[in-house]
Amino acid sequence: MQSAVIAPSILSANFARLGEEVDNVLAAGADWVHFDVMDNHYVPNLTIGPLVCEALRKHGVTAPIDVHLMVEPVDRIVPDFAQAGASLISFHPEASRHVHRTIQLIKAEGCLAGLVLNPATPLEVLDYVLEDLDMVLLMSVNPGFGGQAFIPSTLDKLRQVRARIDAIGKPIRLEIDGGVKPENIGAIAAAGADTFVAGSAIFGKPDYRAVVDAMRSEIARAVTTRA
Amino acid sequence: MQSAVIAPSILSANFARLGEEVDNVLAAGADWVHFDVMDNHYVPNLTIGPLVCEALRKHGVTAPIDVHLMVEPVDRIVPDFAQAGASLISFHPEASRHVHRTIQLIKAEGCLAGLVLNPATPLEVLDYVLEDLDMVLLMSVNPGFGGQAFIPSTLDKLRQVRARIDAIGKPIRLEIDGGVKPENIGAIAAAGADTFVAGSAIFGKPDYRAVVDAMRSEIARAVTTRA
Amino acid sequence: MQSAVIAPSILSANFARLGEEVDNVLAAGADWVHFDVMDNHYVPNLTIGPLVCEALRKHGVTAPIDVHLMVEPVDRIVPDFAQAGASLISFHPEASRHVHRTIQLIKAEGCLAGLVLNPATPLEVLDYVLEDLDMVLLMSVNPGFGGQAFIPSTLDKLRQVRARIDAIGKPIRLEIDGGVKPENIGAIAAAGADTFVAGSAIFGKPDYRAVVDAMRSEIARAVTTRA
Amino acid sequence: MQSAVIAPSILSANFARLGEEVDNVLAAGADWVHFDVMDNHYVPNLTIGPLVCEALRKHGVTAPIDVHLMVEPVDRIVPDFAQAGASLISFHPEASRHVHRTIQLIKAEGCLAGLVLNPATPLEVLDYVLEDLDMVLLMSVNPGFGGQAFIPSTLDKLRQVRARIDAIGKPIRLEIDGGVKPENIGAIAAAGADTFVAGSAIFGKPDYRAVVDAMRSEIARAVTTRA
Amino acid sequence: MQSAVIAPSILSANFARLGEEVDNVLAAGADWVHFDVMDNHYVPNLTIGPLVCEALRKHGVTAPIDVHLMVEPVDRIVPDFAQAGASLISFHPEASRHVHRTIQLIKAEGCLAGLVLNPATPLEVLDYVLEDLDMVLLMSVNPGFGGQAFIPSTLDKLRQVRARIDAIGKPIRLEIDGGVKPENIGAIAAAGADTFVAGSAIFGKPDYRAVVDAMRSEIARAVTTRA
Amino acid sequence: MQSAVIAPSILSANFARLGEEVDNVLAAGADWVHFDVMDNHYVPNLTIGPLVCEALRKHGVTAPIDVHLMVEPVDRIVPDFAQAGASLISFHPEASRHVHRTIQLIKAEGCLAGLVLNPATPLEVLDYVLEDLDMVLLMSVNPGFGGQAFIPSTLDKLRQVRARIDAIGKPIRLEIDGGVKPENIGAIAAAGADTFVAGSAIFGKPDYRAVVDAMRSEIARAVTTRA
Repeated sequence: MQSAVIAPSILSANFARLGEEVDNVLAAGADWVHFDVMDNHYVPNLTIGPLVCEALRKHGVTAPIDVHLMVEPVDRIVPDFAQAGASLISFHPEASRHVHRTIQLIKAEGCLAGLVLNPATPLEVLDYVLEDLDMVLLMSVNPGFGGQAFIPSTLDKLRQVRARIDAIGKPIRLEIDGGVKPENIGAIAAAGADTFVAGSAIFGKPDYRAVVDAMRSEIARAVTTRA
Repeated sequence: MQSAVIAPSILSANFARLGEEVDNVLAAGADWVHFDVMDNHYVPNLTIGPLVCEALRKHGVTAPIDVHLMVEPVDRIVPDFAQAGASLISFHPEASRHVHRTIQLIKAEGCLAGLVLNPATPLEVLDYVLEDLDMVLLMSVNPGFGGQAFIPSTLDKLRQVRARIDAIGKPIRLEIDGGVKPENIGAIAAAGADTFVAGSAIFGKPDYRAVVDAMRSEIARAVTTRA
Repeated sequence: MQSAVIAPSILSANFARLGEEVDNVLAAGADWVHFDVMDNHYVPNLTIGPLVCEALRKHGVTAPIDVHLMVEPVDRIVPDFAQAGASLISFHPEASRHVHRTIQLIKAEGCLAGLVLNPATPLEVLDYVLEDLDMVLLMSVNPGFGGQAFIPSTLDKLRQVRARIDAIGKPIRLEIDGGVKPENIGAIAAAGADTFVAGSAIFGKPDYRAVVDAMRSEIARAVTTRA
Repeated sequence: MQSAVIAPSILSANFARLGEEVDNVLAAGADWVHFDVMDNHYVPNLTIGPLVCEALRKHGVTAPIDVHLMVEPVDRIVPDFAQAGASLISFHPEASRHVHRTIQLIKAEGCLAGLVLNPATPLEVLDYVLEDLDMVLLMSVNPGFGGQAFIPSTLDKLRQVRARIDAIGKPIRLEIDGGVKPENIGAIAAAGADTFVAGSAIFGKPDYRAVVDAMRSEIARAVTTRA
Repeated sequence: MQSAVIAPSILSANFARLGEEVDNVLAAGADWVHFDVMDNHYVPNLTIGPLVCEALRKHGVTAPIDVHLMVEPVDRIVPDFAQAGASLISFHPEASRHVHRTIQLIKAEGCLAGLVLNPATPLEVLDYVLEDLDMVLLMSVNPGFGGQAFIPSTLDKLRQVRARIDAIGKPIRLEIDGGVKPENIGAIAAAGADTFVAGSAIFGKPDYRAVVDAMRSEIARAVTTRA
Repeated sequence: MQSAVIAPSILSANFARLGEEVDNVLAAGADWVHFDVMDNHYVPNLTIGPLVCEALRKHGVTAPIDVHLMVEPVDRIVPDFAQAGASLISFHPEASRHVHRTIQLIKAEGCLAGLVLNPATPLEVLDYVLEDLDMVLLMSVNPGFGGQAFIPSTLDKLRQVRARIDAIGKPIRLEIDGGVKPENIGAIAAAGADTFVAGSAIFGKPDYRAVVDAMRSEIARAVTTRA
């Protein structure tokens, strides 16, 4: 398994001073910036688009920007985000008629490609594309809304995807998004996740470093135990 | 005619420090914050949603926030923006099956209501709702893209809408959006606009106050001449 | 002007005994049965479809059934309603890409054809089809919701459509739907309507005949005054 | 396995006297009222909506009302049906981008939740939500049209779903809809169904009780044989 | 008025030997090739796309190719047709949210731009774009179906558009499409059309030249009379 | 396994003389005509529709015409193609809400029915309809674009579908489409395909017979080896 990545979701950051927020959370030890894009069609909410991503790059952010597209359709906006500085771009298979083509498009634009599975989405969507992916993102809440609790059955699903990834022996990341916090991140890591999105659990706290450190030590303990 | 309002579009601001940008432009004499919402469906671009609006309010912005919805459909997102602190909400008639109902919805949510006319949209869409509106917004470029030049025939259209508004004698604002800059704002004001959106013409310059002042004096000269 | 028609909307009737309700309201002097079809797409509500219309015919209803389609798209369901016994079929121009073709389709299916104008819809939609129509229906509330009050500016719109119909000298009916009751039906008739939809104003009262009679005498007074 | 439930589909009842029809079929021994909602989008037909459901409750129907939504999208209409008195609400996974969220929504509105599988829909849609469901509904005809014959391969599919339900040991109902009649209901029950929708097989016959009794005795024989 | 143009619609040609058909009709005196594109969405029919246009150019056709897009949305396919050799591209305003932008796009791609009005479409759609157009196309039948008769009221509409074009004094073509044949082409020309689409009236006849000649002489007579 | 079928895709033929092209390729030994229909919605391209199919039949083509619908939705256009002379009609399961019904519709119209799997589509879509199919078509490139290379992982997928077909013992064809040429057709046949679509590999070469012969001998060698 690859080294753990903590990817704070900037949806929970202060948008009036986003550059500073991102600087602070990265300085506190976070690895990636998780960037949630909603279009009021795939989910009933509208958040932020390419120009906010670009502003972070111009501000000086060099960490990977991990763009999660909750939009439908997907393809038209992929080049916009690539140009705006995205590092990874993930999308939902229900939102693209041509999942294989969208993956190739993301790669052709110079980004890493991820596929996102909603809580009810079966694993069969991975059957013919897992080897082409750089990341699988499992939603542990339903996308589009904040403040939801981690759905417990996601742990089993994590184990199943972990097994699939291990079986093909490629360094495909397994990311989890929804309700992640220090109290459950150990169990999540033990189930096989190696990349952890957290929003309010980090940005909602006064001391970002304390949360990131707590998460890391819980992950380390879980992984050690597993090994 | 009402007093002139200058409404800088934050699409051209630095999104990494948006609160500071808005503070600065308001301190430089701007009146409103113009807030461009695109959903990648009504226009092929995705910008910013309610949570960015809310962040500005939490940051301390008290000036009117003038939300221009380039989204389709319209109604579901209206309450989100009202709750996020919008002062005015404008929408495109092509994007709502029930234009009268959407206007009532915006008002019921406690906001002022505007209707936006694309360059090709005929004035007949105003026939049965003009009296219910607080603002008419004429697009002098096609929405969804930056960096376009002012379409000259908009001046005639401004004069026609001005005449309609004057005829009913209600304080309905007439806003113009697209390619507005100190060089043409006088002619635009002379044609009847009283509310002026400008993006890169303000945020693209080092001295916001200088631009705002230049715009105001051009408007004043034009209005004086007209009177 | 043609003789007045009162068309109770069965949306306000008791659906558990619809045949009896319709029998009663017709026995009480109503002329037509107004049948509101909503599809949860053109309006956010879903009501009743062809099989309910057919049930009324099988029950023995011989009065005209006046079907108002609040559906989108329109054409596929037109033959279903013709076959189910509809007499008139009206639709919204925003809901059909090919308004002229839909009118021809309704007629080809053996029904009379109406066009419905929402409160904000300009009259220009009538420019090239008025002569082909059997009825114009003006909405005096926004379709899709019950319990709304009559929008006063509809009276002016009625007068304008009345003038257009009179100008071409064909027996095209002018129907009004929304917030009609004995208290305002006189003013509505005076403005030019000759066909009156009423829902709760009739079915919400214990004595249908009393309401219908009151409506008729108000209409008669208004028309006499006008003449 | 739970006790057998017979759920007559009111689509085949007489809509001119629906309350009486429902009273009669319940008096004849039926358990539930099956309520088929079509929106002319998910299927090319439009039937009945919340206000008809509400009318049945006001008429005095206290039996469970089993609402089958053949609509797309699903979420907006769920609260309308909950408020109108629905007991169970079932929907098609193809019609909701967020199947897990829709299930939670139905439950949050106080109803039991079902998922409906079209004849071609694979069982994998159940993988991560079966435990959250109160019912699985297998279509043994294609939804949207009456008068179709039972698709024989549904028996195998029933056995497969039965096995899945038994494996998790929760009282999840397994309902079958399409072409069910006394002649095949024994085989259907033997394959694992415990809840049976029938339309014309009941309402098309003069003696509802005779059909319901015949169905029950066939089910009983099949279940006894199986046990 | 400009010189008359006859534009045979290749929808009525023999698609098994299209190059030869086009060669023959041009040799018989036709001026343009009218190319009808349907996408099974804007109209319920699907015809031919860019690769057929390109094949005609590769075959050696040098006459103007007049592409009528009955597709929705419009913008994505415009560059494809420009690249495939289209000379003019016309579209329906109902099929583009941004009519002014689509016109600019067609011109930016190096083609002439036309707007098409359905039989029921009011002239107001021309109010703010007529000066930007190279052609107005009036449908005298409903698009999407062959074998329809010329709608007589189109003659009035032609006269109204003719007056608008004459008023601005630009060489904007006025094209007519639907049911045009030698018997009515004189009246159509007299009403102001200068560009004539004909399908089966030409390709359905054994002698293309005879029809084209007959059309031309009828047009000449009508125009002479008018002058 | 059934005898090999070579089905040249006419998308790569010369559309200016399509009848002659088809005659030539059939005379060169091809078995079927593969007919690619794109609607600019399911895929971002628009090609050819029923009237081109009909023209081939009128031209005298008697070979099977194998229509691949890359359109969405599917059902409306099926009867048009049946009437135009299609022999087989294949569609994508993502493009029909009711896959079983569409298959029945194709058969009811007198054609053979195929289901097409995109590169990422899992095999579970076959679970409950394989027995009803006459053909399974595996895409070895993403549909909608020419000039793509064969996706190597399709060979495994072919083997898996071949095993499923063999298991039920029905003469269901297994077709492959995308990047097929003499160099890889042997491996493709060895993996289980029996029906081979090729576009530019045939029509892009001067000697059709040479390519068809080369393909056949490669297929024969592969099948012999496999046996």
